Amino acid sequence: MKCKRCGKKAIANLRAYGIALCEECYPEFYIRLVKRSIKRHGILKESERILAAVSGGKDSSAMAAVLKELGYDIELLYIDLGIGEYSKESERVVKDLSKNLDVKLNIVRLKDYGFTVDEVARGMRRKTCSACGTAKRYIMNRFGRESGFEVVATGHTAEDIVSFYIKNVAGGAKVWAEKLMPRNEPFDEKIVARAKPLFEMSEKENMLYVLVENIPYTLMECPHAPKPEWKEIVYEIERRKPGFVKNFLRGLVRPAEEFDETRYCKICGEVASGEICAFCKLRMRFEGLR
Amino acid sequence: MKCKRCGKKAIANLRAYGIALCEECYPEFYIRLVKRSIKRHGILKESERILAAVSGGKDSSAMAAVLKELGYDIELLYIDLGIGEYSKESERVVKDLSKNLDVKLNIVRLKDYGFTVDEVARGMRRKTCSACGTAKRYIMNRFGRESGFEVVATGHTAEDIVSFYIKNVAGGAKVWAEKLMPRNEPFDEKIVARAKPLFEMSEKENMLYVLVENIPYTLMECPHAPKPEWKEIVYEIERRKPGFVKNFLRGLVRPAEEFDETRYCKICGEVASGEICAFCKLRMRFEGLR
Repeated sequence: MKCKRCGKKAIANLRAYGIALCEECYPEFYIRLVKRSIKRHGILKESERILAAVSGGKDSSAMAAVLKELGYDIELLYIDLGIGEYSKESERVVKDLSKNLDVKLNIVRLKDYGFTVDEVARGMRRKTCSACGTAKRYIMNRFGRESGFEVVATGHTAEDIVSFYIKNVAGGAKVWAEKLMPRNEPFDEKIVARAKPLFEMSEKENMLYVLVENIPYTLMECPHAPKPEWKEIVYEIERRKPGFVKNFLRGLVRPAEEFDETRYCKICGEVASGEICAFCKLRMRFEGLR
Repeated sequence: MKCKRCGKKAIANLRAYGIALCEECYPEFYIRLVKRSIKRHGILKESERILAAVSGGKDSSAMAAVLKELGYDIELLYIDLGIGEYSKESERVVKDLSKNLDVKLNIVRLKDYGFTVDEVARGMRRKTCSACGTAKRYIMNRFGRESGFEVVATGHTAEDIVSFYIKNVAGGAKVWAEKLMPRNEPFDEKIVARAKPLFEMSEKENMLYVLVENIPYTLMECPHAPKPEWKEIVYEIERRKPGFVKNFLRGLVRPAEEFDETRYCKICGEVASGEICAFCKLRMRFEGLR
């Protein structure tokens, strides 16, 4: 397959966009997509100080790299959760990332607050991921505010948001609408704004970007993370319906339309959305044909 | 496998409820589920005149039969859409159903309004299903109102609603929230209330009920209906996560919770949902362990 832009050998076939690209044209395409998404959804402001939360994984590394590339004022935050070899490897990677991007890295260690995620896992097994989420959100917000950042950016992807939504609706958990939104303004002065600059990007697109641009990342996975069953369901729907993830996501964040006043069909008098109801339009069509 | 109630040979293993039942205990179980759902969601009122829209398919036949069984005041409405052999077979079945249940059958023929769905299919191929939907909604509402019914009941199932929702969010179509709701009150005097008494029931449960109770139905499918790709996706998720359809549905219709006033953690001063924030609760837990 050839690159649609320059004709060189393509490295990526992006089914959701119906386009194949080579390794030189891909990053440009990717950066433009992120830029457009940030602008369209008002995800970041040009002048604000951004704290980019990074984990060493492909998505947050891609986020940090593309924000730097787009000229935003960013620093990195790495939270050392104390998860054995995984945390050590992640820290090595984010230090590499910091050098590679020439961006300051801030490190906060959960240990300094009195515990680690490994200890949580030993003590209360089932709720490890929930406790880890609590710790990360707490530290991101508190460190961000105390260090004078106006927004904390995370590397959530389109798949994260869609699988989170479906899982939570099905799981009986209250769906926090703000977890689906690309940007949340603070509802209190102690809260820092939160942004998801890659919320419309897929994991595959992020992976391609870090690979092609040689951006440091690790494939190592958290040993406490459960099997991503809901993500796999989302991948399966995407396989059957290419474009599903992005389309569903856009549907979720679309603002609700307002309801028009009631109108009545000029022909039959039934309730209609315009001058003539949909049924009478059909009838007229067939009367015309006869 | 044996019936959990009486020990006889089971005919149904209901994974969503973790129960196997025999052909004598199943109908009782099914009827109780529908009754509970109607009550919990206020789907029907005991005294109202109900027009049950039937197509000859298993779901609407099950609905008519269970409403009659539960003692509601119902009549049937069959709309002859003029879809060749399919409409003829459906009409035979609903006439059987009417006798079987001893309930009056009303028939409205689309032909009397000047066209048939087969003619729509010949003339405007791609929009056949949408035109057919328009015609059915129009006739159900107008006939219902003019004949003095207070509510029109349809045989929509849990799978119908979940697949409709996912398809529409992904398809960029505005999701009409009222299409997801088990009952919609009229917003205008020309509109009759609409109810979905089986909205929490699955197709499999309806099928078992009509089979075991010998309720007339046809397996014939509309020749214009497209491949039910979104339904198949919903079946696939259900296979992977038994109970998904019902759980997701309940999540969709759950009313949104209200947001509490902002509170601050007594220990660290950060925003909290209670007296102490979730992070400090974690810390306290580990301080206690040391």
